[in-house]
Amino acid sequence: MDTTIKEDPENPRFPQIIPLKWEVGCSNTKNEQPEAYYPANIPGAVQLDFMQAEGHPDWQFSDRFKQYLPFEDKYWHYQAKFGRPNIPDDYELIFRSEGIDYAFEVCLNGELLHDQTGMFSPVDLTLSSHLKDENQLEVTIFPVPKTPGAEVGRREADTAVKPAVSYGWDFHPRLVPLGIWDETELVIMPKTKIKDTELRYVLNSDDTAQLEYRFETTRNQSLNYKWKLLDREGLATAQRTGKINGPTHSFKVELDHVNRWWSHDLGEPYLYRLELQLIDDSGKVIDSIVEQVGFRTVKLVMNEGTWDEVRAFPKSRSSAPFQLELNGKRIFTKGSNWVPPEVFYGKIDEARYRELLELFKSAHFNLLRVWGGGIINKKSFYEICDELGILLWQEFPLACNAYPDDPEYLKVLEQEARSIIPRMRRHACMSTLCGGNELFNNWSGMDDQSHVLRLLNSLCYQLAPEIPYINTSPLMGVGHGHYLFYDEESGEDVFQLCRRAHNTAYPEFGVPGIADRETLESIIPEDELYPPRASDAWIAHHAYEAWQSDSWLELKTVEKYFGKAHDLETVIKHSQLLQAVGYQCWYESSRIKQPYCSMVLNWCFNEPWPTAANNSLISYPAKPKPAYYQVVESCRPVLACASFAKFSWTTEELLEISCYLLNDSQTVVDSGEVEVFIQINGNQQKIGNWAYPKLSTDTNFTGPILRYPIPEMRDKTLFQIQLKVANRPEYDSEYHLHYHAPLRERETSDTTNL
Amino acid sequence: MDTTIKEDPENPRFPQIIPLKWEVGCSNTKNEQPEAYYPANIPGAVQLDFMQAEGHPDWQFSDRFKQYLPFEDKYWHYQAKFGRPNIPDDYELIFRSEGIDYAFEVCLNGELLHDQTGMFSPVDLTLSSHLKDENQLEVTIFPVPKTPGAEVGRREADTAVKPAVSYGWDFHPRLVPLGIWDETELVIMPKTKIKDTELRYVLNSDDTAQLEYRFETTRNQSLNYKWKLLDREGLATAQRTGKINGPTHSFKVELDHVNRWWSHDLGEPYLYRLELQLIDDSGKVIDSIVEQVGFRTVKLVMNEGTWDEVRAFPKSRSSAPFQLELNGKRIFTKGSNWVPPEVFYGKIDEARYRELLELFKSAHFNLLRVWGGGIINKKSFYEICDELGILLWQEFPLACNAYPDDPEYLKVLEQEARSIIPRMRRHACMSTLCGGNELFNNWSGMDDQSHVLRLLNSLCYQLAPEIPYINTSPLMGVGHGHYLFYDEESGEDVFQLCRRAHNTAYPEFGVPGIADRETLESIIPEDELYPPRASDAWIAHHAYEAWQSDSWLELKTVEKYFGKAHDLETVIKHSQLLQAVGYQCWYESSRIKQPYCSMVLNWCFNEPWPTAANNSLISYPAKPKPAYYQVVESCRPVLACASFAKFSWTTEELLEISCYLLNDSQTVVDSGEVEVFIQINGNQQKIGNWAYPKLSTDTNFTGPILRYPIPEMRDKTLFQIQLKVANRPEYDSEYHLHYHAPLRERETSDTTNL
Repeated sequence: MDTTIKEDPENPRFPQIIPLKWEVGCSNTKNEQPEAYYPANIPGAVQLDFMQAEGHPDWQFSDRFKQYLPFEDKYWHYQAKFGRPNIPDDYELIFRSEGIDYAFEVCLNGELLHDQTGMFSPVDLTLSSHLKDENQLEVTIFPVPKTPGAEVGRREADTAVKPAVSYGWDFHPRLVPLGIWDETELVIMPKTKIKDTELRYVLNSDDTAQLEYRFETTRNQSLNYKWKLLDREGLATAQRTGKINGPTHSFKVELDHVNRWWSHDLGEPYLYRLELQLIDDSGKVIDSIVEQVGFRTVKLVMNEGTWDEVRAFPKSRSSAPFQLELNGKRIFTKGSNWVPPEVFYGKIDEARYRELLELFKSAHFNLLRVWGGGIINKKSFYEICDELGILLWQEFPLACNAYPDDPEYLKVLEQEARSIIPRMRRHACMSTLCGGNELFNNWSGMDDQSHVLRLLNSLCYQLAPEIPYINTSPLMGVGHGHYLFYDEESGEDVFQLCRRAHNTAYPEFGVPGIADRETLESIIPEDELYPPRASDAWIAHHAYEAWQSDSWLELKTVEKYFGKAHDLETVIKHSQLLQAVGYQCWYESSRIKQPYCSMVLNWCFNEPWPTAANNSLISYPAKPKPAYYQVVESCRPVLACASFAKFSWTTEELLEISCYLLNDSQTVVDSGEVEVFIQINGNQQKIGNWAYPKLSTDTNFTGPILRYPIPEMRDKTLFQIQLKVANRPEYDSEYHLHYHAPLRERETSDTTNL
Repeated sequence: MDTTIKEDPENPRFPQIIPLKWEVGCSNTKNEQPEAYYPANIPGAVQLDFMQAEGHPDWQFSDRFKQYLPFEDKYWHYQAKFGRPNIPDDYELIFRSEGIDYAFEVCLNGELLHDQTGMFSPVDLTLSSHLKDENQLEVTIFPVPKTPGAEVGRREADTAVKPAVSYGWDFHPRLVPLGIWDETELVIMPKTKIKDTELRYVLNSDDTAQLEYRFETTRNQSLNYKWKLLDREGLATAQRTGKINGPTHSFKVELDHVNRWWSHDLGEPYLYRLELQLIDDSGKVIDSIVEQVGFRTVKLVMNEGTWDEVRAFPKSRSSAPFQLELNGKRIFTKGSNWVPPEVFYGKIDEARYRELLELFKSAHFNLLRVWGGGIINKKSFYEICDELGILLWQEFPLACNAYPDDPEYLKVLEQEARSIIPRMRRHACMSTLCGGNELFNNWSGMDDQSHVLRLLNSLCYQLAPEIPYINTSPLMGVGHGHYLFYDEESGEDVFQLCRRAHNTAYPEFGVPGIADRETLESIIPEDELYPPRASDAWIAHHAYEAWQSDSWLELKTVEKYFGKAHDLETVIKHSQLLQAVGYQCWYESSRIKQPYCSMVLNWCFNEPWPTAANNSLISYPAKPKPAYYQVVESCRPVLACASFAKFSWTTEELLEISCYLLNDSQTVVDSGEVEVFIQINGNQQKIGNWAYPKLSTDTNFTGPILRYPIPEMRDKTLFQIQLKVANRPEYDSEYHLHYHAPLRERETSDTTNL
């Protein structure tokens, strides 16, 4: 199935879409008729249509989502009626869909035309020969797949190629979408169509390239083709015309000079436009496609220093390679983890993708990990990433389960992967394919011998060898977590953890933060808003019992530093401050650890519904939290930066301020001076100043360690360290640290041991 | 190409082999004629034929092998003449070879019939249509492949699918074989032959099985087939007859009960006999094959305890699975590493394989690692392992190099792997396929992203998913080395290392030992025999400069413990004793570490030529060293065993004797008593005794830690600890420990700091 953009400027009439009025209803058994049918939104989800029709109030409020649990085991019946369309010779009527979730059958006039298990393989059915004067098209959706005998939750998803997150997660309610979830249409199309296209290329260090282009047609017909590669100005960089006879055609093209695709932070995400037309002997364009194409090379290479790590005998292996190399340049990746931006992912549209991805880019992020607990996104997502210059790490939909070496599961997975991989391969932004999330940890229970992962590795090698593949994350040398500002068990705060951690990459770590008042009011009943408590609404929205009993609100941590709060505003202020401070520490300390460390991606960027508290930077649907703006600061290409051994200090302790000038930019930074101030008890005091030399592109400078004895502070729990760069205010930074009274004074206070 | 045993009892005349008198000569260019031709041994190596013809004295003596270096860059021309054979209708003349090394062409009467790069893909050419009355068959061998620009040594082999060991290793001279190295014949055969067979099966826990058998024929002919599976008594367990029309045929068979194949230590290596006959309409058997077949399941599973290893945040992955599970039973594997038993591997025959493998089995070894520096063995090797019940870990021929993602290399590797994997898959003994040796270490420089390894994983998954595959060894959690009794750098002896090491598996570790006098006299000129020194002969035979300057003789270590020797006999005695003591420590301490530790394989079992000193247990060609007999003792299924913190002790130190009763056997061990003695200054003294309970199969018992203060010893450097088991002398063990004078006395002695 062709998944590229289609248009036919010379024959505007075809493809001609037949508008359909879909409706949907549910039943308890497959063959039973629904009692009622409701209008259906396509794409969407059967549950949303049902809610809308029944006039159910907002399902996101409190714990109302639980009402929909019984509907998991229903059969859902879509139907649409249409008359006999007028189909010219050499045209046919096609029912096509980019995705139907999950197991389903398609019938026309009661005749079974297709059955499928798998939401990521498109459907492409020719209906012409089955038409009557009045036609009824039906799509029957089977109940939510659940592994027999599995405990309730993600384990039920371990034999389905379906997002495990839908079965309940620490930031996601238990709501498992079903239905037609991606672009779907009934359309009159030429019988001879472009069925499949593939562009392979070798890109050389001198920017020349050898292209090989291959395409198939749906039937044998003697035709001409016109192929063009247009640059950004619309000028043809290369073109080919020729005759095709067989169903497959391929040719090679040499390019003298290619404008490489770069991630937005390193250069231009240059995209070419590729056009292919099939032309019959009369000169008429039969079918055509347009694709955007970017040229780049991408590799995962050994992190600097990992080869040299001396280990005593017996010697084990070296760490897994985890540094991205784009166009031959080793890069440091800053970014985040993407989760489905809607519980009912059928609702996601291009506008939502764009809004979130623009925020992503604005944070100076260059690598987005599409987490394996969620979906393979719709096409527009990948097109926007190509366009915005955002690198992607795309996981297959496997997470935190032991997916079995079961022939039925492997069959569906192979079918889905064979559809997914060629689509992913098309995109310049695609930098890593990954089997799934945390599969080699004991809460998942998979290992390198898994046939599931050997299959995915094998298919990725066969279908997209040019894209790095990893079985899972974390791998050897890579670190996941922690997900707290302060860990009561280890007694360690985020500053202490970041000082100690020695990993090649940090593709997951979190610091929780509460939502803003507006969001909280939209999901928590008014009388439960203050004080926050482990009530149904707060629990449903992940403030309590999401991961550990206190997660994600972590009120104990907030109160540990700031004492008991007496209103919601104060809780919000302090929780959001800790999240911002924690993320500042993570991003900046990881940047300092270059080049051994090559990656820093927080958990997580966005969220699928309004949470009360979460590690996300962006509240549902696309509302940045204060931590987001701090991360924007911490990920500036150039900044003066300071690192601290811990968050909380007391009188007479010697505060050490390790100073850096970080430059991830592609420009040279002129030498300069930094003044360091402490803001304490309402006064700004200068601690010292230091100079940094002229810095090459991608070069950090390690400045001095300044020291300052913490004075007595009155009625204060926070103080600030400020770095001010002469004539370069855009490089300035500010740090919030905590002050606690010396032990002798705290014995009577209500804060716990720091 | 069919690689199974062929016979045709009902038509003894065919296949009829045409005897050939091969000769060989060399030239400097491909088209130049050799000055002279010599008689050629098939299979063999061109160098051996040359040496024999020229009357060169023993090439293994001293450093004479160096004379053959210039011949690496020659072209070698095999030729054989034969008249026109009488070929009945429906028969044809075939030239077939199991292996020609490395790049070559085959011509008949000057016409190029075939060219190939790769020594492991068989050749199968039909000559019938090219025959004349007088025929000349020629095989032209190209020079030794060498990567352009590579430094001399194994790096030159990094673009060839050829044993890297031949390019020089720490136990192997630089001698790179070329020529026809495996079974090769000119033979009249039926035109319709069985071309390929494949048996796949699912073996269930109740010992029932579903078989699927598939075979191909070389041409379309309406024929009958007879298929039988015979048990060890020759009774048919299953049979099928049928008609075949197309070129491929397959059928399924259900078996009610299967006798499983077990490794010899766990049960019987039960083999069935599989027969397939093609029969024409007249009832005549056209072609037939016989194969031996064993049924078993094999997996690599997570070592016990590895899932539970708690790691602080950030968390990395768990260790790689490295415990073999045979027929659903987790097993502890004891064994060794196999290197080619001849420098010129073309010389190896079934008798040599059998002699070495019988020694392997007698050592109670159950797992043999066929190291990736060497060859894929000839067919008889795998058949003997099936028969003797020896599990195999088979590596592809890659070792200690960064094999590149180069299209040419990948093409040859794929061709070779597609030939190798189906042959390996046939054998019940095959327990692990592995990409190659130590590829993920810095002296090699490969990593998980290597296309070479992704290709091998992909092909193994496609062609033999039932056999575990690993990219290389060591993997995470697995330990390689050390290769010394005492490491001067770390100041650690083998006892101390074994106490400290915490790995899931030890697939490589070595303790060097000198050869016996007879071997030394055969390779070292008489006047260099004593004292051993870094002369050409000793260096050539790896006593010096093999790995580090002092390896593998390690005379410094011998003298550290025993003082300066004054004759060769004493050096031999002490070196061989240290080797035996070191290996005793390694095997027994690894057995004690069960179940976390699952594997103990020393480096190495055998050797390709007579070394002066080496880590091998067996001297060339098949002569056990004293260490071998010690390992036989240490690997007894049941033994009383003691572990010590270090090797060398002195007066007043408290010797701790950690006692165990080890039971790897499949029988229950009755309870009993062990007496522990110290043999010192010529006297035996009892230290204590302890009791052990009745022990289940596969169960170790941890006994007491006995303590004994080391007394003053006069003129002694060794003392013994003996464990004597009441009424079970076959469980007794003895340990040699070293005594050194207290520091105050040693200040004037000639031993160095201990």
